[in-house]
Amino acid sequence: MNIDELKKIIRDVQDFPKKGIIFKDITTLLKEPSAFESSIKLLLKECEKHSVDKVLGIESRGFIFGAPIANKLNAGFIPVRKPGKLPAETISETYELEYGTDSIEIHKDAINPGDKVVIIDDLLATGGTAQAACNLVDKCGGEPVLVAFLIELKFLNGRAKLKGRNVFTLIDF
Amino acid sequence: MNIDELKKIIRDVQDFPKKGIIFKDITTLLKEPSAFESSIKLLLKECEKHSVDKVLGIESRGFIFGAPIANKLNAGFIPVRKPGKLPAETISETYELEYGTDSIEIHKDAINPGDKVVIIDDLLATGGTAQAACNLVDKCGGEPVLVAFLIELKFLNGRAKLKGRNVFTLIDF
Repeated sequence: MNIDELKKIIRDVQDFPKKGIIFKDITTLLKEPSAFESSIKLLLKECEKHSVDKVLGIESRGFIFGAPIANKLNAGFIPVRKPGKLPAETISETYELEYGTDSIEIHKDAINPGDKVVIIDDLLATGGTAQAACNLVDKCGGEPVLVAFLIELKFLNGRAKLKGRNVFTLIDF
Repeated sequence: MNIDELKKIIRDVQDFPKKGIIFKDITTLLKEPSAFESSIKLLLKECEKHSVDKVLGIESRGFIFGAPIANKLNAGFIPVRKPGKLPAETISETYELEYGTDSIEIHKDAINPGDKVVIIDDLLATGGTAQAACNLVDKCGGEPVLVAFLIELKFLNGRAKLKGRNVFTLIDF
């Protein structure tokens, strides 16, 4: 499938997670083998422009694309998770939400100094989580070579928060 | 890597998530490309004994194995998630915990009647979540042909809850 076909297979769900929001539901893409395969392939193509040691997936939809891409790149897969989920020693990064703040964590020993890291998530919205993930990689001494998303919600201007980072998004809304 | 080598690369973390529990931490396996590749390959080998339409991954570590396996089988990937996370109409299944209950959800249109389904999670502990996932597939009219796990904690006897199901686990503790 090409990008236009992938775009069409993503379902709009009205009023989720709250009234007035139109949610881009990727489960309709995931359940269609050729659509899932094409989106992995197209994201992979971008990742292959770099030498990659680790692929970092952001919990939890980032795992769905991050894990197969790590495997295909022959890179390690690193889960970035919500607070309290990773069992060993972690490094944490806090980011701002519309109201309040949230945090994500990475294992302290997940990334070696100098590791070239691709960060993967399904959706670039306000960019807060991805920015925090880049900061985690920096703190570990790794190098974020690419931040890749399946979908970008352009009207939220998440790229502003990722200024200076190498950002790739497959499907724009 | 063979199963013994995979077993060794899984890290014990003391007192997680609470005092007295030794947690099997798979992040040390995931970050090692050859270990991640071997575990996917060995799970895949078991899945390939069946004709598979959908691979169902249980949130969130089940996504890490379920997504690459779905992709390699050329099957659809179906996320089973905690309540309130899936945007469209869902079917829910409740299961018992040590204290109280918990639920998981699947999209109502995720599985077609007659679909052959593999259920994947990282860990078979008490079996409650996997049993609930099997029940969700039944409710959708699908056929759970295999329930596959990376790790089984044998002393918790989770297989008792999955009686009558086709269960495969790669690494026993």
